[in-house]
Amino acid sequence: MPVFESAAFEQTLDSEVIDEVYAKVEQERKSALTGYYDLPYERDLLHTLKEYAHNSKSFKKVKTIAVIGIGGSTLGTKAVEGFLRHTQKQNRELVFFENSDPVDIWSKLEPLKKKNTLVIVVSKSGSTIETISIFKAVATHLELDFDKDSDRVIAVTDRRSVLEDFALEYGIRTFLIDKNVGGRFSVLSAVGIVPLYLAGYDVEALLDGAQRQMDLFFAKESHHLLQKAHFYVQNAHRYHTNVVFAYSSQLEQFVKWYIQIWGESLGKIDAAGEGVGPTPVGLTGSVDQHSFLQLLVEGPKDKTVTFIAVEDFGQPLQVPQLRLQHLEKTDYINGESFQTLINAQCEATKRSLDELRLPTDKITLDRIDAEQMGALMTYYELLTSIMGILMKINTYNQPGVETGKKILRQMF
Amino acid sequence: MPVFESAAFEQTLDSEVIDEVYAKVEQERKSALTGYYDLPYERDLLHTLKEYAHNSKSFKKVKTIAVIGIGGSTLGTKAVEGFLRHTQKQNRELVFFENSDPVDIWSKLEPLKKKNTLVIVVSKSGSTIETISIFKAVATHLELDFDKDSDRVIAVTDRRSVLEDFALEYGIRTFLIDKNVGGRFSVLSAVGIVPLYLAGYDVEALLDGAQRQMDLFFAKESHHLLQKAHFYVQNAHRYHTNVVFAYSSQLEQFVKWYIQIWGESLGKIDAAGEGVGPTPVGLTGSVDQHSFLQLLVEGPKDKTVTFIAVEDFGQPLQVPQLRLQHLEKTDYINGESFQTLINAQCEATKRSLDELRLPTDKITLDRIDAEQMGALMTYYELLTSIMGILMKINTYNQPGVETGKKILRQMF
Repeated sequence: MPVFESAAFEQTLDSEVIDEVYAKVEQERKSALTGYYDLPYERDLLHTLKEYAHNSKSFKKVKTIAVIGIGGSTLGTKAVEGFLRHTQKQNRELVFFENSDPVDIWSKLEPLKKKNTLVIVVSKSGSTIETISIFKAVATHLELDFDKDSDRVIAVTDRRSVLEDFALEYGIRTFLIDKNVGGRFSVLSAVGIVPLYLAGYDVEALLDGAQRQMDLFFAKESHHLLQKAHFYVQNAHRYHTNVVFAYSSQLEQFVKWYIQIWGESLGKIDAAGEGVGPTPVGLTGSVDQHSFLQLLVEGPKDKTVTFIAVEDFGQPLQVPQLRLQHLEKTDYINGESFQTLINAQCEATKRSLDELRLPTDKITLDRIDAEQMGALMTYYELLTSIMGILMKINTYNQPGVETGKKILRQMF
Repeated sequence: MPVFESAAFEQTLDSEVIDEVYAKVEQERKSALTGYYDLPYERDLLHTLKEYAHNSKSFKKVKTIAVIGIGGSTLGTKAVEGFLRHTQKQNRELVFFENSDPVDIWSKLEPLKKKNTLVIVVSKSGSTIETISIFKAVATHLELDFDKDSDRVIAVTDRRSVLEDFALEYGIRTFLIDKNVGGRFSVLSAVGIVPLYLAGYDVEALLDGAQRQMDLFFAKESHHLLQKAHFYVQNAHRYHTNVVFAYSSQLEQFVKWYIQIWGESLGKIDAAGEGVGPTPVGLTGSVDQHSFLQLLVEGPKDKTVTFIAVEDFGQPLQVPQLRLQHLEKTDYINGESFQTLINAQCEATKRSLDELRLPTDKITLDRIDAEQMGALMTYYELLTSIMGILMKINTYNQPGVETGKKILRQMF
């Protein structure tokens, strides 16, 4: 399981605060205000998928899975895929259609061939403008006849949505999401599990990691989560930006998922009518040491920084014992592994910020595997929920994005 | 040329302020405090590159150009490549080695073949730990014998750096950067021009666009730049975060370049000893409407937002005239091009933020070509310089990143 070092947030929390947060979380879970708490325990989907993969004739020929979805419908899947994609040869390639950018769509659409493509359309409501429009473009390009080609499409959508109605009409295989599982909390529902399983990723381990983290929390053994959230909320005016600095290129998609869950859940109008919500920033180490770090060090001390490191990359590549004339200054690293280098860079950067008394903490993943990612995502989901409870906001809605949608409709 | 709409910043600036800023910029240029102002006018490099490409025997067989560099040594090149990569079939593929992540390095290193790979190592100092270490790994993997294989390597580095000394030792072709051109302002120097030209991009148009923007500014015809910077600096405490919301997947790398130039240039300790500097945030539309937008709309009103749109994507892909049962709700867009959709989404989102009186502005690029990118990057370089002048800081150094480097060295 990931190791959490968060000395900066260590504080004796009133047992009243602790009890109140747990009471509210348990209330959220029981009242089904949000359904994500139970997802790691639901394993029926795996059996259904195993059967599907075994019985579907067309699936055996599938080489590419075109996943059409946007925001919470794809960010979690991409985070898991981005983390694991170099750990094994995947059975099938995932291609994500997310943006209404025509150049992006065409660059991915052009190489698709009907005979070896499975289309997974993911939309909770079934009326997401990008998703349905791209679905039409993909269906047209592949010349899908829904009456005959229903087995080349899978729908992932809310129970009783118009997309479910469409799928029923044509006998398209559908996997349902409970309405109380919001997009940004849905990676462990059919939204993430269906494409990840079919691409060949170990979703059982993903759910196992999530379950362990969830169990730890509900066994009241994750007080650092409460301490961290409490610190952030207490100091929200001083530290209005929360940076996640992840030291691996494999975590680039994860930080995008973090930005969504943090920004969309916590950016709200609170009970007093005030706009609240910390700004999430996602960085990749070591690259962003050469970009954003200067601002962290010398700029306003208004940011917290969470470092994420990977203890074992499973890749022994070393800096060769090569002495190049005039370039001796960096020879001190010769013979060390790149893993040693990047982890030392992470630690050195953390120490340089600790010296400046910026609030930092560190999460160390044991290795690059699905279990670690399941635990990490669950940690951030729980942290987000606790933040929302302490901020006294509705963590699970997103009313702010409606105005733009209305204006768009009026424009046509 | 890009169109700049910035009504939110329109203000009658004292002619004194205007004169002072221009005087300081011209002083920076003349005193050679920074050398980037002159880069668009320097075209000798193009002739040298043309000769190199014509005369080098091994270059004709090159299919892959491995660019090794980090931060300012690659971000600008990636921004241009990311914008243009789908506009034409490139002659040669660029592969960027930036991160010390061993999985990332190995995934790019493994497919490289000596016979068709050109290695470009980019480091101003020649002692960047990631760059030199990865260079050693690449050289070892390709079994480069520098005595015999010097024509398979190009060095881009500061005049009289240790990397120039190394290259001279082995007869490796070297392109020099002036010391007063900082990494994040170096895209139009050999840093960006060499790999982009050799990959087949139209760097002449890139420089032309930059030159036109530079000419406009020095002809004092870009007052909106001054107005915008002045607004940002005057309101720095209220609006401490500057969001760039670019409506095209092709601009994803550009926003990363923006984050570096903004964060590293402006995140400084000012004359009063205070840490200052706005926080840059980069978003991609329409995707991030489903992520960060909720925070912009309902969260604290502490952010400015610059929208970037592309008028003509050069890709006519349409939303098909396809009526799908139960999915009629989004049919209002049928028959329109995706370009129309994404540009309407950009405008609708801007209007929804304007209604909330967030300070927004908009930059519209005519099309996806090198000239537009040259102008856009120059616009942001100039904006950064003006911000620095108004903030009374040193825009061109980055002392804050040294502590971490020292700690790293001590760790070995």
